[in-house]
Amino acid sequence: MQIQSIARVGDGVRLLDQTRLPTEVIYRELTDYRDVIVAIKRLEVRGAPAIGIAAAYALAMAAGQQSKYNREIFHQLAGEIKSARPTAVNLMWAIDRLVAKVEASKASSPETITSLLWKEAEVIHDEDRELCRRIGEYGASLINDGDIILTHCNTGALATGGIGTALGAIYTAHEQGKRIAVYADETRPLLQGARLTAWELQQAGIDVTLISDNMAGMLMKQKKISSCFVGADRIAKNGDAANKIGTYSVAVLAAHHNIPFYVAAPYSTFDDNTPDGAAIIIEERGAGEIINGFGRQTAPENVRVYNPAFDVTPFDLITGYITDRGIRPGGREPE
Amino acid sequence: MQIQSIARVGDGVRLLDQTRLPTEVIYRELTDYRDVIVAIKRLEVRGAPAIGIAAAYALAMAAGQQSKYNREIFHQLAGEIKSARPTAVNLMWAIDRLVAKVEASKASSPETITSLLWKEAEVIHDEDRELCRRIGEYGASLINDGDIILTHCNTGALATGGIGTALGAIYTAHEQGKRIAVYADETRPLLQGARLTAWELQQAGIDVTLISDNMAGMLMKQKKISSCFVGADRIAKNGDAANKIGTYSVAVLAAHHNIPFYVAAPYSTFDDNTPDGAAIIIEERGAGEIINGFGRQTAPENVRVYNPAFDVTPFDLITGYITDRGIRPGGREPE
Repeated sequence: MQIQSIARVGDGVRLLDQTRLPTEVIYRELTDYRDVIVAIKRLEVRGAPAIGIAAAYALAMAAGQQSKYNREIFHQLAGEIKSARPTAVNLMWAIDRLVAKVEASKASSPETITSLLWKEAEVIHDEDRELCRRIGEYGASLINDGDIILTHCNTGALATGGIGTALGAIYTAHEQGKRIAVYADETRPLLQGARLTAWELQQAGIDVTLISDNMAGMLMKQKKISSCFVGADRIAKNGDAANKIGTYSVAVLAAHHNIPFYVAAPYSTFDDNTPDGAAIIIEERGAGEIINGFGRQTAPENVRVYNPAFDVTPFDLITGYITDRGIRPGGREPE
Repeated sequence: MQIQSIARVGDGVRLLDQTRLPTEVIYRELTDYRDVIVAIKRLEVRGAPAIGIAAAYALAMAAGQQSKYNREIFHQLAGEIKSARPTAVNLMWAIDRLVAKVEASKASSPETITSLLWKEAEVIHDEDRELCRRIGEYGASLINDGDIILTHCNTGALATGGIGTALGAIYTAHEQGKRIAVYADETRPLLQGARLTAWELQQAGIDVTLISDNMAGMLMKQKKISSCFVGADRIAKNGDAANKIGTYSVAVLAAHHNIPFYVAAPYSTFDDNTPDGAAIIIEERGAGEIINGFGRQTAPENVRVYNPAFDVTPFDLITGYITDRGIRPGGREPE
């Protein structure tokens, strides 16, 4: 059974604190929008769609915390929530959608506006659930009985409001009775693959084996991988896809070994305002994630560290895009 | 200045305790051979050449601790030291060489034998230092002023009796006044790059930046890497090279980006009894190194793990081999 990482509970949200997994399963109920911002910043809630949903609920919570509606303050709150994670396009999109809804309604009573925001946030959540279901269906059509799939980072029920994107395809194939196995990259530095993907696939009873990121190439060389399924945080107009750091290396390795490489993401991840990958600004994170990654200092404390959170996989290394509107071909030449 | 991980001091040795790095720099002076055995067992001294040198000094110390020479006891002591790390080929080789030297000398005075052993141990150490120096010279000829070099695992002063192999090339280029910078892969699962390489390059005043293994591809795409230098544990007759897990992925990425990929190793690493990479048996290590990286559980405790310690880079992905006897071309087609 897939877990549910985010849910509305009354006038607040219940979040599964992903920073505590896999050793502790702790759900937190938040009623102050500022706590949701902190949760997004602390990566307690992560994954582009899940962040968008959490942000939408947060704006409803923020509006509910105001005694009267003030357009300027409302926009300020929206901006405050947007700045929680600047690379997350879903966050921007969700907040913009809520703001547009309020503006279009011409409502001014705080109760009406708050109720409108909660409803729209729930619609966003429902849409995401449906969207994951569709991505899962399309993605599963690319998975054969007996396939062994490599995945990177976490793109499942912990990252979305539904069954996930890349993992959604895996869940759906599994539910269709296909016998599949998954290799999960641990995904340094934050180990989403080890902490989250391995954990949620285990919960769902799917055969999963954990590896460190630098082992994927060897597995491909040994012909142990049938296909790669990853997610995307943003896809530029030309098809270049930004995703968790390390995705690009998996794509190069997959191309070298002639293994299909699929990017699964909502159609909304395609950002026509971004012409290509070079236009995507990559968030750089702190040195501590590399130096003190495991609760113990494992590198000289003052060593220089380069820690980009994402990389960009160019169109010509992608076999296909799995979206809620169907499968779109990528630019990789079949060999 | 390069650190010296092992040195003779009077009738004893001084070892840098590598289990305490990078947080503590502790040199231990040992005068009892049994303490050297414990240090080898506890991995305070590591790296095949460094272990061989420490073992050789230990046998000299053991002989010096005897009041008279007894051939049986001498062989017993040699066996005791050999069993400190039964898989370390250099250790067997060094002890056998010392024993043969004593037997050939036909000496019987304990002073003569002890002095002979100290001299031969120093010769072994000197030879390794010279071998590293030569690899360094040849390797540095492939490094240009302004180069930015990617390296994987640890192949430096901490692993050898001299300046190292792949890192030896970097040290030599630096001493020649070339302005170079190094990116060090942290090298999961045991983080030799983070714990050891980053630390020893810092000590030598070399510009080093630590990355997680999955960031190398992105750096190459950004044209930030001039060349890759790695070591090798064994090189088959056809040129396939076994080295620390992750080396193969670096080689594939380097080929994709048309970046030179060099393997630096003593000429003795070429093993003509191994026809090709497929004949090299890869040690698989325990799941704990991935699940319980460093003092904290970061994956579900019962998750299946695949943890090969080495991988094999085929001849056709290697630009060249840097040995103490010169540079040998690899099989990678220049683009």
